[in-house]
Amino acid sequence: MTEFNLRVATKSDCPRLMELIRELALFERAPDEVTVSLEEFEEAGFGPHPVWKAFVVEIDGVVVAFALYYVRYSTWKGSRLYLEDLIVTEDYRGKGLGKLLFDRLFQEVRELGFSGMVWQVLDWNEPAINFYKKYGADLDAGWLNASLSKEQVASL
Amino acid sequence: MTEFNLRVATKSDCPRLMELIRELALFERAPDEVTVSLEEFEEAGFGPHPVWKAFVVEIDGVVVAFALYYVRYSTWKGSRLYLEDLIVTEDYRGKGLGKLLFDRLFQEVRELGFSGMVWQVLDWNEPAINFYKKYGADLDAGWLNASLSKEQVASL
Repeated sequence: MTEFNLRVATKSDCPRLMELIRELALFERAPDEVTVSLEEFEEAGFGPHPVWKAFVVEIDGVVVAFALYYVRYSTWKGSRLYLEDLIVTEDYRGKGLGKLLFDRLFQEVRELGFSGMVWQVLDWNEPAINFYKKYGADLDAGWLNASLSKEQVASL
Repeated sequence: MTEFNLRVATKSDCPRLMELIRELALFERAPDEVTVSLEEFEEAGFGPHPVWKAFVVEIDGVVVAFALYYVRYSTWKGSRLYLEDLIVTEDYRGKGLGKLLFDRLFQEVRELGFSGMVWQVLDWNEPAINFYKKYGADLDAGWLNASLSKEQVASL
């Protein structure tokens, strides 16, 4: 395999990360759902109150995969790492980059003392589900994701 | 209706909030899943780096309902209010306390400029689903909740 570089994301990675986020949204059949701007994304990661952190895998100077997380608070379990996105660009799938990022996330959970890690996966995304099952992850059906947009809230 | 007091939760509310959290876990058929300690819960809400905030409804000096949220970061939508728990103790259901708390959350979304609010609901919890539908909330099936506990991560 080509030489890779695993590191924490910096502000200058943001445009490329947003490209990959759009690639995933397309795969998840929701390309129009990405409405956050680059400016907001940068501010949220590198402004005065950072809310997310990401690890990137770089090959030949190009970011080809990343994992982005924030801290979620569960009234059952306490503070946990919430894996918002794990993305490997199409040409680099099946080469172990997902495992590399997962290992880095496990290290983060241990180092920062989180009570575990959580994420969501679409129920038809078999390759991802199989990958998660290898780690013995618990996959829980039966919950609906509920949401109200800013515009809906403004009208209520 | 009896006189009520809607206010932001303080540290001294934590023991009562945990009672209500256990009441909800029982209703959600997962009483053993509440493993967070009172000390961790207080620290997460009122320590040097607070991660959650809650609104409580008090009647005759007793907290009978509350809504607890933290900020979640979506790479599609930006920062949103994540409603972790909305609990009305059994004797006080159907009296409009849920609506009261929802209105307060909407105010929070508007004041803090969140890009919306999100939460989860069990797909068999009809009363809750009907309540959310009144607001036109989007209810999205098809996602699995994945998790690895601290102990699992330690063993990987």
